[in-house]
Amino acid sequence: MIPTLNDLHDHALDARLRHLIDHKTKPLGALGRLEALALQLGSILGSEAPRLEHPQLVVFAGDHGLAAHGVSAYPSDVTWQMVENFLAGGAAVSVLARQHGLALTVVDAGVRHDFAPRPGLLLRKLGAGTDDALAGPAMTAQQCAAAIESGQGVVRGLPGNALLLGEMGIGNTSSAALLLSRLIGAPIERCTGRGTGLDDAALAQKVEVLRAVLTRHAEAQAPLEALAAFGGFEIAMMVGAVLEAAAQRRVIVVDGFIATSAVLVAHALQPPVLQRCVFAHCGDEAGHALMLSHLNAQPLLQLGLRLGEGSGAALAWPLLESACRILREMASFDSAGVSRREE
Amino acid sequence: MIPTLNDLHDHALDARLRHLIDHKTKPLGALGRLEALALQLGSILGSEAPRLEHPQLVVFAGDHGLAAHGVSAYPSDVTWQMVENFLAGGAAVSVLARQHGLALTVVDAGVRHDFAPRPGLLLRKLGAGTDDALAGPAMTAQQCAAAIESGQGVVRGLPGNALLLGEMGIGNTSSAALLLSRLIGAPIERCTGRGTGLDDAALAQKVEVLRAVLTRHAEAQAPLEALAAFGGFEIAMMVGAVLEAAAQRRVIVVDGFIATSAVLVAHALQPPVLQRCVFAHCGDEAGHALMLSHLNAQPLLQLGLRLGEGSGAALAWPLLESACRILREMASFDSAGVSRREE
Repeated sequence: MIPTLNDLHDHALDARLRHLIDHKTKPLGALGRLEALALQLGSILGSEAPRLEHPQLVVFAGDHGLAAHGVSAYPSDVTWQMVENFLAGGAAVSVLARQHGLALTVVDAGVRHDFAPRPGLLLRKLGAGTDDALAGPAMTAQQCAAAIESGQGVVRGLPGNALLLGEMGIGNTSSAALLLSRLIGAPIERCTGRGTGLDDAALAQKVEVLRAVLTRHAEAQAPLEALAAFGGFEIAMMVGAVLEAAAQRRVIVVDGFIATSAVLVAHALQPPVLQRCVFAHCGDEAGHALMLSHLNAQPLLQLGLRLGEGSGAALAWPLLESACRILREMASFDSAGVSRREE
Repeated sequence: MIPTLNDLHDHALDARLRHLIDHKTKPLGALGRLEALALQLGSILGSEAPRLEHPQLVVFAGDHGLAAHGVSAYPSDVTWQMVENFLAGGAAVSVLARQHGLALTVVDAGVRHDFAPRPGLLLRKLGAGTDDALAGPAMTAQQCAAAIESGQGVVRGLPGNALLLGEMGIGNTSSAALLLSRLIGAPIERCTGRGTGLDDAALAQKVEVLRAVLTRHAEAQAPLEALAAFGGFEIAMMVGAVLEAAAQRRVIVVDGFIATSAVLVAHALQPPVLQRCVFAHCGDEAGHALMLSHLNAQPLLQLGLRLGEGSGAALAWPLLESACRILREMASFDSAGVSRREE
């Protein structure tokens, strides 16, 4: 069941937050993008002294039937191998989560591999990879609904008031590009990028495969139909996670192209999710800038990242902490005895 | 005495760092700007497993004779009031330094106020503010040399292998704009911004004042002559701090427009300082982007900051930590048993 979201419309709180920020000991607006971020976090958490608690970085992993068509530079086995790497602590996101004290959970949404159960791993397999989207839908409508519900359940089972989205899935830039093209009506070549590092010829081949997938599923126009047609399991679970986190007024930190594609779908279903989303960065994957612009999102970082995993969300995390601390800890002109500007 | 700097030219180490980064479990280049940062930090610290230790955020504060001509939206008293705020822990930079475990030191380089001595404050006053640069040089050649030497001494007295530059001084965007215009030969109107928030009329007035200062000191062409003519004490001390930190192979984290103007002067004196500088952000002050581009610098953040104090350097700090940790802690394809790309 998809929850109905209300707007965050406590205008009195927003006005108090604006007043607080404007009276901190700094020229008006001098903290730039951080000021809007502080206002947003106060608004989401319903507090003039917001505090981020028990942040959860969740990496949703799944395999893609379409990967058989050479849309990625890496073999599908890398999905499960990287899941092992996340859990062993050696991946970029493992390192960054440790640095920032983020609890890291990996979710098997549908990897083509059987994992031994262990702490930090949630087994929520919806299938051994999605089906080939060139041959039929990547998942059935039932699988898609189950994936969304399962993503909601993952969030319900985790503590805290902040969710950082990560993902892993060889082939999943294809699903994200297909969702982008279909949901905003942009030509597939503007939505498709090099993923993990395709050369020019392989990129052209990827565009042709994706064009054929779009044609094959010309009828899949509604958000949930498109999601089922193009996959993947990890994206559908993220859609559920975003909807649930938004309903609970958790802060949602959105990573790169794939995580943003889940927000694109969730936004099409429930537009107020956007008020709870902080966009961590604009990645290097072609299509991400277009997607962010469609969502009217202003990402915090531009570091040329194209890794996924939640690495960009983790890198942006200290900025969210800073924004909250500025609200909580900075002095005002009055409290510090600092003169105001000369008028 | 200005130290002579050698290039960091351990090509064998650089090659080993590049190899390490390229074999981490991620597609080539997928960590974007962070990869070049990791390479730079390894190179500065001379290690394949670099570790940042006892980072020092130093805020140099000074007043400016030119402030009497209405080049700032705030009165000069704000300089000493903000020094008190830094020390009391209520300023943005105080909050951010606490968040990231940065030792914060405030240096009175020449504030027009007598401070009671206390921990965290270094009294290194070179005068009660600089002289009016419209009437004569802001400081004498002797004062300028003493300021540089004093800045070197400040760094020698502090532990650790990383220096984050901060500053405070009502009127100091004028000094930075004058240095930029003179040292790179750009028209003053391209170098001059709104500082703490001038309106259009006040900005036009500021440009006219600065144009007159440039004419008054047409002979001050060499870097040290320009520095003495335009001030301020805090910028000259930062020049010394940059030269000393670079000579000691400390990592130098450069904040906004004013801190970058000190690097501009230090670079004109000793070009290899740049190899030790990490540019934290591109600020909102007109002229900062031009200055960074002249130094061929690629700043880490673009958050529309225009506060100074070292706030941007502090906000960027976790990215430096991340870059070091990626080198130290991330697994390689071989160690993690992850398949390479398909060729």
